[in-house]
Amino acid sequence: MRILVCNDDGIYSPGIAALADVAAAFGTVQVVAPNAEQSAMGQAITASRPLSYRPTPAVGPSAYRVNGTPADCVTLGAHNWGKVDIVLSGCNLGFNVGNAVWHSGTLAAAKQAALLGIRGIAFSAPASVEKYDALKPWMHRVLETLLPQQGLKLVNVNLPEEPRGMIWTRISVRQYEGLIVPTKDPKGRELYWFSATPLEAAPEGTERWAVEQHRISMSPLCLDLTGHRQLGALRADHPLDEELARTVSPPKSSPEAAKKVAQEEASAAAGPQHP
Amino acid sequence: MRILVCNDDGIYSPGIAALADVAAAFGTVQVVAPNAEQSAMGQAITASRPLSYRPTPAVGPSAYRVNGTPADCVTLGAHNWGKVDIVLSGCNLGFNVGNAVWHSGTLAAAKQAALLGIRGIAFSAPASVEKYDALKPWMHRVLETLLPQQGLKLVNVNLPEEPRGMIWTRISVRQYEGLIVPTKDPKGRELYWFSATPLEAAPEGTERWAVEQHRISMSPLCLDLTGHRQLGALRADHPLDEELARTVSPPKSSPEAAKKVAQEEASAAAGPQHP
Amino acid sequence: MRILVCNDDGIYSPGIAALADVAAAFGTVQVVAPNAEQSAMGQAITASRPLSYRPTPAVGPSAYRVNGTPADCVTLGAHNWGKVDIVLSGCNLGFNVGNAVWHSGTLAAAKQAALLGIRGIAFSAPASVEKYDALKPWMHRVLETLLPQQGLKLVNVNLPEEPRGMIWTRISVRQYEGLIVPTKDPKGRELYWFSATPLEAAPEGTERWAVEQHRISMSPLCLDLTGHRQLGALRADHPLDEELARTVSPPKSSPEAAKKVAQEEASAAAGPQHP
Amino acid sequence: MRILVCNDDGIYSPGIAALADVAAAFGTVQVVAPNAEQSAMGQAITASRPLSYRPTPAVGPSAYRVNGTPADCVTLGAHNWGKVDIVLSGCNLGFNVGNAVWHSGTLAAAKQAALLGIRGIAFSAPASVEKYDALKPWMHRVLETLLPQQGLKLVNVNLPEEPRGMIWTRISVRQYEGLIVPTKDPKGRELYWFSATPLEAAPEGTERWAVEQHRISMSPLCLDLTGHRQLGALRADHPLDEELARTVSPPKSSPEAAKKVAQEEASAAAGPQHP
Repeated sequence: MRILVCNDDGIYSPGIAALADVAAAFGTVQVVAPNAEQSAMGQAITASRPLSYRPTPAVGPSAYRVNGTPADCVTLGAHNWGKVDIVLSGCNLGFNVGNAVWHSGTLAAAKQAALLGIRGIAFSAPASVEKYDALKPWMHRVLETLLPQQGLKLVNVNLPEEPRGMIWTRISVRQYEGLIVPTKDPKGRELYWFSATPLEAAPEGTERWAVEQHRISMSPLCLDLTGHRQLGALRADHPLDEELARTVSPPKSSPEAAKKVAQEEASAAAGPQHP
Repeated sequence: MRILVCNDDGIYSPGIAALADVAAAFGTVQVVAPNAEQSAMGQAITASRPLSYRPTPAVGPSAYRVNGTPADCVTLGAHNWGKVDIVLSGCNLGFNVGNAVWHSGTLAAAKQAALLGIRGIAFSAPASVEKYDALKPWMHRVLETLLPQQGLKLVNVNLPEEPRGMIWTRISVRQYEGLIVPTKDPKGRELYWFSATPLEAAPEGTERWAVEQHRISMSPLCLDLTGHRQLGALRADHPLDEELARTVSPPKSSPEAAKKVAQEEASAAAGPQHP
Repeated sequence: MRILVCNDDGIYSPGIAALADVAAAFGTVQVVAPNAEQSAMGQAITASRPLSYRPTPAVGPSAYRVNGTPADCVTLGAHNWGKVDIVLSGCNLGFNVGNAVWHSGTLAAAKQAALLGIRGIAFSAPASVEKYDALKPWMHRVLETLLPQQGLKLVNVNLPEEPRGMIWTRISVRQYEGLIVPTKDPKGRELYWFSATPLEAAPEGTERWAVEQHRISMSPLCLDLTGHRQLGALRADHPLDEELARTVSPPKSSPEAAKKVAQEEASAAAGPQHP
Repeated sequence: MRILVCNDDGIYSPGIAALADVAAAFGTVQVVAPNAEQSAMGQAITASRPLSYRPTPAVGPSAYRVNGTPADCVTLGAHNWGKVDIVLSGCNLGFNVGNAVWHSGTLAAAKQAALLGIRGIAFSAPASVEKYDALKPWMHRVLETLLPQQGLKLVNVNLPEEPRGMIWTRISVRQYEGLIVPTKDPKGRELYWFSATPLEAAPEGTERWAVEQHRISMSPLCLDLTGHRQLGALRADHPLDEELARTVSPPKSSPEAAKKVAQEEASAAAGPQHP
């Protein structure tokens, strides 16, 4: 099995070394990670400049660093290696639970794998972990549990210190509170830190609750962001031109129409589009 | 109604000017947008440095630019304005359909609104649009349709040129193809562009199909990334320590446990965590 | 005369608009400036990625923005325009005196011109200037004075508010004091602001003294950083292998030797060189 | 002797490890270097956000990485260590000769030391060096030669492979040629690489000529950018209001005047200044 290991803390993080060590028991490992810390980068991709991909023997014989985001590393690593069976991302220095699922670069690497049709698993541990040795047997056990489940395309794993068991969990979707902390620069000009104060305890069954209770949390994630229930209700209660569209449009667009839209995308392929 | 207008092409983009114009018919508008182009930034947030927030009279009397990402703009704009009823993001210079839903900074601004408990609507148009005047009546009609639907918390809108109607759509989840284009710098060193070749036509009912057929596409998005169906199946077929956890753990963690986990998060609050 | 106007505050700064206005009385003007604020960037150049160069009609019919540094703008602008007689940089929002001469992006644009064999003049005004109308006649007078002096390849101009005359000045070379201001992020982690406390008054004849006395300051700068006096003394008092080198080496290296060294440079041509 | 070792290739570069090794024979060494590659950054400083300073045990017990430029590392390292006798910068992966003296981050660290009143020496070697072992005795000999010369505040050293002697040199000031190489992104949009073609051989006595002839080159640099000869000529031949200024202005400004100008600087203290 070909295992690509990525992260968002950068190729020199001790967390990625721990994950690569554990992964080596399950297959051939290649490390492809950012050349600098990329925390909270979300699923940013770099389309406005070309990326470099450089061997990094200080990390290992099969280690490459990329001057880009975690999602860039996965895309470029998968392309250059030819065939990848699974992407493992982490182990992140800090939990990724709740809203962090949207922002996290660690998760973004696993999500990017999923968009490429490759399984992706993200690992996160407490920010204060200094030695990963105690967590390695647990990371091994997580892989033993998840790898045989071929249908699990995208999983978010959080490991507490001194785990007491392992459970399947859902994401705790909660709104933020107390996000902005004003500050000043030495000249007295106003600036603003993005921060978040500790929130109330999370409900049972969520990943946050799991790590609060010292369980290893494993959350299966979906790949389709459509709000399907809402979509059904809207089509039933507030129909627009769906009927018309179904009647006069082909169920599949012509190649010309598809190509034209592809040229007009913002997206992946593009980078800045200003005139 | 207080309407915050954001984008990812930067505060000087003609697209945001068009959206702010249209929005002014529905309430009080404030523009808060990045000071530079931030395309394909995903839902990156800036937690490792403080952000600036500066009036930008060249754009308008209620316009502020932020040295950060689209998600930063929404968070900071909502905080500084006090109360925001809805966030409109765009109008983006380029469609945001398919996988772009994960990477797009335009979408990220609307998602960030949703995480803050504020409604969010993202607008995108073809990359080649030069004048927005012809699209403005359609943007107006989109808002007339969406604003009364209070339950619609997060919607992705794509407007083709010369629209022929308006439909509710789902996201076209497809894998990428042909993503990496090698190049060399003038010294002959290898580099790699992230790109994407046009794909096959999208299936009926998706946003991509909609714009291929010249319909305005409106996709309701979900806020919970949990794969609930998979989660149910896993709990039933591969139970781990859920039973134990339910028995010995309180349904709600103690404030101490919650606080401890909050301190160990990577996340929003954190930025780089290296020792 | 072909006049390239650049700055480091970004293409949308009111200062560059004022300078371009004044310059138009002396020749044909083209504005080429960074697409985002680039203060204190020094003479950084961008060699690790390609640069974009995009018309920016919102600023003017001959205005282009570059996703790079002030030095990049001058290099790219001069190349794309074909022939440039002089580069004017600014008008910067803030004086550039003393050590700022090393860090300033405004100066860097003028220095880059000089490296390209083009005359360069940098303009700076107080940071608190809001309207440039009162300064424009003075900027005009500065150009009337400097342009005929063909031998002046690189000049640093600072304009105080309400100027009372105009003098030739030298740079006030003084060491910094009180440079670092500790701070903490909202999580309590230590960070450090780079700052500087006001220093003692500058000596007569310097640019700093000039603006303190409300004079317009014009400092001719040199292009050769060699410490020639020290070099002479070292060769006399501590000779090394100079005699040997003169005897056995040709006064001009072979093309092969020159090419080999050029390939081994870090420099301009290169960008990151890591294996 | 307290020796601060910095570079621009980043804290994990093999070149900085070699320089730190050599330096340890002459005093107590502390490594403070950028957390990512910062080549060609010039003397950029970071004033718009606070900097982090983090121990990096993977590099050594007295090693710290900074999320900033080489000049930032020197300023912050000198402040946090309290007293620094000399700053050594490098060993850079690539020569720094000719115009690179203006752009080089390696040089910028040494220059920043000089601005702080600390001696600074920059070391550069061919870009293709893979093992520094052969160069270490030469670096040792350079330090033996330079350290006793207390008056040498700022020196630029270039070491060829297999050196044959050591000479004092001047900077080869030459204009660039062939700087811009057009390219296209995969969508066909025009972009521009900054590059430089090999130039004609350099004249005798310059640093470029020295390394072409396999000599170690040591160039003393000046700290004052004023063109003193030109300044004298201008004051004699084209007097402006110098006489007036001398007559009516005090030879030293009042503290109030000095403070007012300090507040209006762009500079070091400031970062972006836009209203």
